[in-house]
Amino acid sequence: MQIEGRKRVVIEGVKPEINGGLFAIKRIVNEPVKVEADIFSDGHEEIAAILMYRNSKDQEWREVPMSFLLNDRWTATFIPLEVGEYLYTLQAWVDHFKTWQKDIRKKIDAGQDVSVDLRIGADFLKRAAERAPSKESAQLKKWAEILNTDDDQAGSRIVALNPEVGETASRYPDKNLSTFYHKELMVHVDRKKAKFSTWYEIFPRSFGKTSGKYATFKDCEKLLPRIAEMGFDVLYFPPIHPIGQKNRKGKNNSTISKPGDPGSPWAIGSAEGGHKSVHPELGPITDFKRFTKKAIENQIEIALDLAFQCSPDHPYVKEHPEWFKWRPDGTVQYAENPPKKYQDVLPVNFETENWQELWEELKSVVFFWIEQGVRIFRIDNPHTKPFAFWEWLIIEVRKEYPDIIFLSEAFTRPKVMYRLAKVGFSQSYTYFTWRNTKWEFMDYMNELTRTEVKEVFRPNFWPNTPDILPEHLQFGNRNTFIIRLMLAATLSSNYGMYAPAFELMENRAVDGKEEYLNSEKYEIKNWNLNSPDSLQKIITTINRIRHENTALQDTNNIDFLNIDNEHLLGFIKTDEELSNIILVVINMDSYSHQAGRFALPLDKLEIPQRESFLAHELISDTRLFWQGKNHSIMIDPDKMPAKIFRLYRRIRREKDFDYFM
Amino acid sequence: MQIEGRKRVVIEGVKPEINGGLFAIKRIVNEPVKVEADIFSDGHEEIAAILMYRNSKDQEWREVPMSFLLNDRWTATFIPLEVGEYLYTLQAWVDHFKTWQKDIRKKIDAGQDVSVDLRIGADFLKRAAERAPSKESAQLKKWAEILNTDDDQAGSRIVALNPEVGETASRYPDKNLSTFYHKELMVHVDRKKAKFSTWYEIFPRSFGKTSGKYATFKDCEKLLPRIAEMGFDVLYFPPIHPIGQKNRKGKNNSTISKPGDPGSPWAIGSAEGGHKSVHPELGPITDFKRFTKKAIENQIEIALDLAFQCSPDHPYVKEHPEWFKWRPDGTVQYAENPPKKYQDVLPVNFETENWQELWEELKSVVFFWIEQGVRIFRIDNPHTKPFAFWEWLIIEVRKEYPDIIFLSEAFTRPKVMYRLAKVGFSQSYTYFTWRNTKWEFMDYMNELTRTEVKEVFRPNFWPNTPDILPEHLQFGNRNTFIIRLMLAATLSSNYGMYAPAFELMENRAVDGKEEYLNSEKYEIKNWNLNSPDSLQKIITTINRIRHENTALQDTNNIDFLNIDNEHLLGFIKTDEELSNIILVVINMDSYSHQAGRFALPLDKLEIPQRESFLAHELISDTRLFWQGKNHSIMIDPDKMPAKIFRLYRRIRREKDFDYFM
Repeated sequence: MQIEGRKRVVIEGVKPEINGGLFAIKRIVNEPVKVEADIFSDGHEEIAAILMYRNSKDQEWREVPMSFLLNDRWTATFIPLEVGEYLYTLQAWVDHFKTWQKDIRKKIDAGQDVSVDLRIGADFLKRAAERAPSKESAQLKKWAEILNTDDDQAGSRIVALNPEVGETASRYPDKNLSTFYHKELMVHVDRKKAKFSTWYEIFPRSFGKTSGKYATFKDCEKLLPRIAEMGFDVLYFPPIHPIGQKNRKGKNNSTISKPGDPGSPWAIGSAEGGHKSVHPELGPITDFKRFTKKAIENQIEIALDLAFQCSPDHPYVKEHPEWFKWRPDGTVQYAENPPKKYQDVLPVNFETENWQELWEELKSVVFFWIEQGVRIFRIDNPHTKPFAFWEWLIIEVRKEYPDIIFLSEAFTRPKVMYRLAKVGFSQSYTYFTWRNTKWEFMDYMNELTRTEVKEVFRPNFWPNTPDILPEHLQFGNRNTFIIRLMLAATLSSNYGMYAPAFELMENRAVDGKEEYLNSEKYEIKNWNLNSPDSLQKIITTINRIRHENTALQDTNNIDFLNIDNEHLLGFIKTDEELSNIILVVINMDSYSHQAGRFALPLDKLEIPQRESFLAHELISDTRLFWQGKNHSIMIDPDKMPAKIFRLYRRIRREKDFDYFM
Repeated sequence: MQIEGRKRVVIEGVKPEINGGLFAIKRIVNEPVKVEADIFSDGHEEIAAILMYRNSKDQEWREVPMSFLLNDRWTATFIPLEVGEYLYTLQAWVDHFKTWQKDIRKKIDAGQDVSVDLRIGADFLKRAAERAPSKESAQLKKWAEILNTDDDQAGSRIVALNPEVGETASRYPDKNLSTFYHKELMVHVDRKKAKFSTWYEIFPRSFGKTSGKYATFKDCEKLLPRIAEMGFDVLYFPPIHPIGQKNRKGKNNSTISKPGDPGSPWAIGSAEGGHKSVHPELGPITDFKRFTKKAIENQIEIALDLAFQCSPDHPYVKEHPEWFKWRPDGTVQYAENPPKKYQDVLPVNFETENWQELWEELKSVVFFWIEQGVRIFRIDNPHTKPFAFWEWLIIEVRKEYPDIIFLSEAFTRPKVMYRLAKVGFSQSYTYFTWRNTKWEFMDYMNELTRTEVKEVFRPNFWPNTPDILPEHLQFGNRNTFIIRLMLAATLSSNYGMYAPAFELMENRAVDGKEEYLNSEKYEIKNWNLNSPDSLQKIITTINRIRHENTALQDTNNIDFLNIDNEHLLGFIKTDEELSNIILVVINMDSYSHQAGRFALPLDKLEIPQRESFLAHELISDTRLFWQGKNHSIMIDPDKMPAKIFRLYRRIRREKDFDYFM
């Protein structure tokens, strides 16, 4: 027989485990990995189990003892300390000494003769002594001797029942017949920004000195202090490469462009270069590098767009015709989603026989920009390229640069979006933009944070993008914009905005569509960021609140409140230690006061029922004492459509006394 | 690169799949295996998928096209036709021709020029023709020619849009870049009795001619016609082997036996032999074989008890002392669950160094009894022997005898019971015996039939066993017995009873315990099966109803009704074709009339709302016409605590006209 038939413990139902271990779960540095499993043996014996984990760079496994929960379920937690890949697995065995100790206790309680049992226990201890280091070995031998030789048994019984004896012996178990879980599971550990980031999207060409003329990276440098002050830490640029001339799009997506029309940045490539070049009017690549450094000085990282598609003029088309689809009439196949056509863009044919060279070239594009200082990429339409390609690419990149972050711009079916997360994308766009009602948000957040999805998929909530001006913004008012801002910024720890359009409440759409009228995709805009209507102040406030409150730097920690008003969406977020408790209530009605009642989960928050506690409303900076679990709230959207309270547990009141006096 | 990067379709979320494919699901012959999976590709192309399956004896896979459900979920079903092991897996690919046909339809609808597209389509068809057999190949080539050469395009457009063209081309797809699911999953196919069986348990020694004296197998032969007439098809005997003399138990589990006390049949082995011997007083083994044959003549199979434990006199103890645990004082370790002791039984030590020889010997015991004609085994306490042992044993047995059925007698924690099912047990005892209220039954049935459990665990419901006289029977009345009978026999397609005690309503317990007073385990009883109080008649009736109605021969087909009375438990069971619709309502109150209202799921039953249909109450053999979905019911337990209706859909009314005229 090939197996070792005496391994009696089984391990199953391990969580987290994605697609049977095919894919890694995701964490950031210092974020706990809580593992659970069903672990049991035949018979009535006690068992012991450990969680084993290691950084994939290390050889040696670290061990954490598992604790029994209920119904044969065990758990343990480890904390990855470095960016990179970690592995975990489980080991369990029958703990004969623990079993012996449990049984002899029952026998002594029942007044049974245990003289032979004491000698069996002595034997277990002697064998544990052989496995223990010298000091504990001596102690174990001493105990064994007492069990073996004490005639009146009073002393032996004390030793037999002593928990310290059990604990010491259990530290040196006989693992000869232990069971290992048959898989090693992976954790993909990112830096903190993968989980907590605040994105600001602009078209750099629109911020020039002269209206309608291309701005340069140098022009954009002066935007950085303002963006930093507003609390954004990622500045995302649509593609900055040369734009194709052939079939260039005109204003409002017209198939005919006029002279001077700049074209869509996503129509990448011209005689001036392709994916590794910068559009000449933005300045030389050295200016881009200089801009990136200036951004870092402002605590801002640049996120670059990776759109693996080509304009008809892209150098690849001549150099690698085999990477594109050719039609029987000798023309190249444009991108299309019939009856729609995208004449300025050629899709790459990933079914090309020459796919390996293609993959290597695309990889070299990513490495090129990493070498220019880019650490974050926003991937355009990843769902139209093979999953296997992304899986390979992200592994290749992480081998050398494990701190790179990839945002997936896949607005498509849920299974496809989650698969992209599984193959390695650090963050993803979501359906947030199209969710409207309280119940839709609760449902969606539960899917994101209460199912397996939470282990792999990090949502990034956007109230708008250059492609999406959603209906509620088209027809809403200023409050609607603030509500969408509050929802994005508090529900999700990653959020972003297509910035000037959002902060200036641009809401003119192409009739009957979600497209911006006079979209910045096809023309150079001239935004007046200093408009008195700007949302700059409330954006700055909410971003400051996010930065000051760790509870808002997580998404999976959300707990919805049951408020008896369908317009009021309320939830609590806390950090692990309950040192930061945030209560958010948002009035989804842009026009009317709404009032409701709710009950706080005081037990969970460890706030005593009978003592008052401080509720600090962070937007208005007002403070009130609350008591008990039942509360009423009224929100006038014209004052502010949301309230964000920080609740102080009594234990912190003395310490924070100056805070509210 | 090792991978083929152009395989674009992914397959995940496959169901059923137990422990990631480590274990087989269970079916009986002709029972459908419905497989579902998430299958999708990058991009917007159409995909195709097939379910592949084969009998493990065959080399070639059979294929079933999968259908799209919703949300990237696909399904297909196959039906295993033979007892044994089947395998299934999935394959999927991008269907370029289907994509082409979808796209060209949209382009034609939008009035776009499709002349080049027609030529692309022609090319697809030509390549499909190369893969097709000659007749269809010629047809495909003809269509290709039309697409290529028809100038005015009217003819080509007709071909392009013709679904038959798509269907023909899709039958000969280019699977060069198809994706296979990375696992082959297993189905363990049993004969029908694994799913539908009716068990009668007796101690054969109690049915002798002389009161208090051992009966023989020959004596028992005369019981067979009566058992068959009552509708039982499995006759289960506790162990029939020689019983140990040493530490033999006396009446009522006394540790001191008197001369003449027969001892517990589970204290197996004496100087007269062990697990391959028959207790001499039952007769020679030839009589057992004869009995088995007689039983078969009565459509009854014998189920034998496999209790892998030994009395202190068992020949193994001397021949294989290493198979037992020895204590430092030279005595052998009895079975115990401190502070309880079972002095007449020695557990086998599965951690013995000599475990391989032990396993082989135990296997030889099973083969020995199979060779005597036994096809069903009831395994005593399987949860106190290693899971790996059972997995190996059952595989070994099924290799030669795939029709063997194993019933697991594990009354223990749920995860342990389900693991035993996963490693191969065909049926299992359950918590049925201790469930009392309507909600407890609904909860438990949902766990058994609505979760993954249903794929591996076949419940067998017992209202009592020689070890368990549950509280409700101790303190209930005749109606209580009938209620438990109805619950067991209608909720579960497998059920059984410790028969004479149940049918004669024996309810005297050891004070404060679930043990029978004067338990048959320790003495020879003398049951008066002809007592006027016997439940024989109602048992016969319910078993006849089970045999006549295929809906009651399944467990997973249960659908509970929402009845507005907590004493009335109601549910519907149907066969796949809706040709047998059974409605059961049980009054759980043994003492009082109970009335309630419920709604029938007419849509699901395909019964029209506005037409009357026949409801035939099968216990009382009374017929009524019903109409619509809302119904009232009243059950007087003193008449009969349950009603079992067969509902006839209108389509059958003409056919069954004579049935109710």
